[in-house]
Amino acid sequence: MAGANIQLDGEGRLRHFLTTDGLDRRILTEILDHAESFAVVGDRPVKKVPLLRGKTIVNLFFEASTRTRTTFEIAAKRLSADVQNLSVNLSSTTKGETLRDTLRTLEAMHCDMFIIRHASSGAAHFIARQVSPHVSVINGGDGRNAHPTQALLDMFTIRQHKPDFASLKVAIVGDVTHSRVARSDIHALKTLAVQEIRVVGPRTLIPAGIETLGVQVFNNMEAGLKDVDVVIMLRLQRERMRSALLPSEQEYFRCYGLTEERLKLAGEEVMVMHPGPINRGIEIDSRVADGERSVILQQVSNGIAIRMAVMAMIAGGKRGAA
Amino acid sequence: MAGANIQLDGEGRLRHFLTTDGLDRRILTEILDHAESFAVVGDRPVKKVPLLRGKTIVNLFFEASTRTRTTFEIAAKRLSADVQNLSVNLSSTTKGETLRDTLRTLEAMHCDMFIIRHASSGAAHFIARQVSPHVSVINGGDGRNAHPTQALLDMFTIRQHKPDFASLKVAIVGDVTHSRVARSDIHALKTLAVQEIRVVGPRTLIPAGIETLGVQVFNNMEAGLKDVDVVIMLRLQRERMRSALLPSEQEYFRCYGLTEERLKLAGEEVMVMHPGPINRGIEIDSRVADGERSVILQQVSNGIAIRMAVMAMIAGGKRGAA
Amino acid sequence: MAGANIQLDGEGRLRHFLTTDGLDRRILTEILDHAESFAVVGDRPVKKVPLLRGKTIVNLFFEASTRTRTTFEIAAKRLSADVQNLSVNLSSTTKGETLRDTLRTLEAMHCDMFIIRHASSGAAHFIARQVSPHVSVINGGDGRNAHPTQALLDMFTIRQHKPDFASLKVAIVGDVTHSRVARSDIHALKTLAVQEIRVVGPRTLIPAGIETLGVQVFNNMEAGLKDVDVVIMLRLQRERMRSALLPSEQEYFRCYGLTEERLKLAGEEVMVMHPGPINRGIEIDSRVADGERSVILQQVSNGIAIRMAVMAMIAGGKRGAA
Repeated sequence: MAGANIQLDGEGRLRHFLTTDGLDRRILTEILDHAESFAVVGDRPVKKVPLLRGKTIVNLFFEASTRTRTTFEIAAKRLSADVQNLSVNLSSTTKGETLRDTLRTLEAMHCDMFIIRHASSGAAHFIARQVSPHVSVINGGDGRNAHPTQALLDMFTIRQHKPDFASLKVAIVGDVTHSRVARSDIHALKTLAVQEIRVVGPRTLIPAGIETLGVQVFNNMEAGLKDVDVVIMLRLQRERMRSALLPSEQEYFRCYGLTEERLKLAGEEVMVMHPGPINRGIEIDSRVADGERSVILQQVSNGIAIRMAVMAMIAGGKRGAA
Repeated sequence: MAGANIQLDGEGRLRHFLTTDGLDRRILTEILDHAESFAVVGDRPVKKVPLLRGKTIVNLFFEASTRTRTTFEIAAKRLSADVQNLSVNLSSTTKGETLRDTLRTLEAMHCDMFIIRHASSGAAHFIARQVSPHVSVINGGDGRNAHPTQALLDMFTIRQHKPDFASLKVAIVGDVTHSRVARSDIHALKTLAVQEIRVVGPRTLIPAGIETLGVQVFNNMEAGLKDVDVVIMLRLQRERMRSALLPSEQEYFRCYGLTEERLKLAGEEVMVMHPGPINRGIEIDSRVADGERSVILQQVSNGIAIRMAVMAMIAGGKRGAA
Repeated sequence: MAGANIQLDGEGRLRHFLTTDGLDRRILTEILDHAESFAVVGDRPVKKVPLLRGKTIVNLFFEASTRTRTTFEIAAKRLSADVQNLSVNLSSTTKGETLRDTLRTLEAMHCDMFIIRHASSGAAHFIARQVSPHVSVINGGDGRNAHPTQALLDMFTIRQHKPDFASLKVAIVGDVTHSRVARSDIHALKTLAVQEIRVVGPRTLIPAGIETLGVQVFNNMEAGLKDVDVVIMLRLQRERMRSALLPSEQEYFRCYGLTEERLKLAGEEVMVMHPGPINRGIEIDSRVADGERSVILQQVSNGIAIRMAVMAMIAGGKRGAA
């Protein structure tokens, strides 16, 4: 709710993109529609459009993520923007500059957009509240909170194959507790009025009370997969093993790994999704990851299109009252 | 003097930009005038001009400075140049290649301009003396010696608010001894015929004999600020505390911190400047840094314009005898 | 042989560039001819051609090499391509993603070309065998195996001065055992039908059986240099000293260092080449490196032209059966 206010300008146009929570169906659909037109750019011999020429986009990464940085960088360059990569670590804090000063300084250089990646939940919102009216913030993943471009590329991929959201049963499988992808997917799926959203995983990795978001909880993998149209596998952070939340990789795979056999329980035309990078043999069997039901690589391609769409919409919108 | 020779080509045009020392009023004013035309580029929807298209500019940084590198990189890209970032550290020395070989190699790749950042005073001059006629050097800060683009952006910012240099009293406050910014500012202010230049700070941080540059020394902050039109605060390197040159941060702030109260001693329309990043509560109070007399963020914006101007002038000048 | 198949498409056009081994004279000459037209680009005021606009080229470096990365990056930008630099280290392996998944992911982002640098011999071939039909691989150096762009720039430099390959005697001097440059040069020189190829160095640094490649082995420097038209000095890895393969730097220079005196034994118009970076006073005397017979810096310039030529040819060729 508060999210919706800060993300849209006075005329209801996208100003920041921080979370799927609080964005309505109209705006999500607008992003997906825009992404359609950018998806074809990747197949052209000249993969470049001049939309953001002369704009300066800053990858402001407080947490390392080569993969996410690369997708935003490629998307920005294909829009003809100039990209600055800034890794902000403790050293600049040591140098005594506050985050607010870093932001003000970049704004004074007439940077137009910040892509924020941060280990702390809420960081992207915090920064969006700090910036000047001419600057926009895109959340590239903050703590356990949100990863909205990932959620939208997931919605885009689903829509390519199964455009009737209202008829879909979707299962999100794995470490839901620690997953910003899960949270952003759930909000988007809910807004797009998916028939049934399930979260599947061990009790230790499903947050208490998640049913209030309108999802059904399954601790049994087989039951959770039954008749679903889409399976979104989450990446298992191997650190969890050491933290006693999980017994072992073998044990996890035995209970919750997506195998060909288990996949037969799902609907015949089931789509298998994963945000990557995949842990083969831990959350997903290689035959499934590389199998004909997998759309994992399509997700990667669509990730570029979605990021281009979000950047273009934000840059194109006139700035009203923030 | 020697500086002037190497910085200008046979026809008196800018060939390198190493120091404000020895550059005459005509050329400094020419840079400021050029920067006027680039300052407006930052406010355009397309912040890009094609002046340096097809030029290769190398950020050759022997000392890390994300901030300075970023300003030069943004400036170069807005001129449509291609930018290569090279961090040169001991590892390449370990690899056995001499600095001269590194320079020759980059020249052979037809690089056009080197932006040099180095911890040793004189490094930029040294490199400028090594390079081939088709290559130019811009000093991005060398040891305690010079930081000429910072000085010019300071002059540009002053001129925007107070164009009559001859009537101005300017105070430079802080660790003058270790400051390349102070040195470059003093030379530029002198050349632009500012009425009075003061350096203000504790005895331990003001170099002996600095009066010979034509400045007045004040060890008392209040006396130094009296009636000045411009205050240029220097960044305090916290390392100095440990080196026994300074008692403590609290003590320094008590004696030389710029507070609202002290600022009342200065002229009514005083401008407060700082090269950044600011140490809030050490050399400057946050209310002053963010107050209405502060032009600190304008300095950042002007920094892009000045760097664009210097690069464009250097690239535009025909190369005569070096 | 197997190399030729994978490097050319169904119509005999360059698809990957992995090794000079197995490429015939026609294709090598075609690359050299193309490079002629790119060599002049470096001397133009606007060093840029639009050939690869909208292409995404990835520097996929599994081994650090600022110099090689820089040459490919400059070459790609002068062709107007977008460049992504990715340093792949153990951390991504730790993150559990396989090399194949990394490649598939980059392909899904519609990257067009991978420049591979890897410490293991065969890595570039391995990757070329993995990639999709729309993606090409250029070997930027793999283990001791091959460094084909270096070999081609060497051939290009030789041809500029001595176009009649059939009349040439060429000596390759130094640590041949560990040198991918030596291997790639030998294959290229052989294919271009050079009259005589010699390898010169201590027994410990010349691989047994190298004569089968059609070269003559000399353990005596003076004998090896006698009457040659071209001397290609190899960079001595100082690590070899510690590994007991070599006595000391002084001793190596005494026996195999290229001095002015020794150079007199070679032909009058001898060319002195070195892939860089040079170890002055170890494998080569500074007077020779900087002397009038040295073409070392021309090699660097030609390196950009060759890399532009290879990228342009690969991007221009229609993809047939891989």
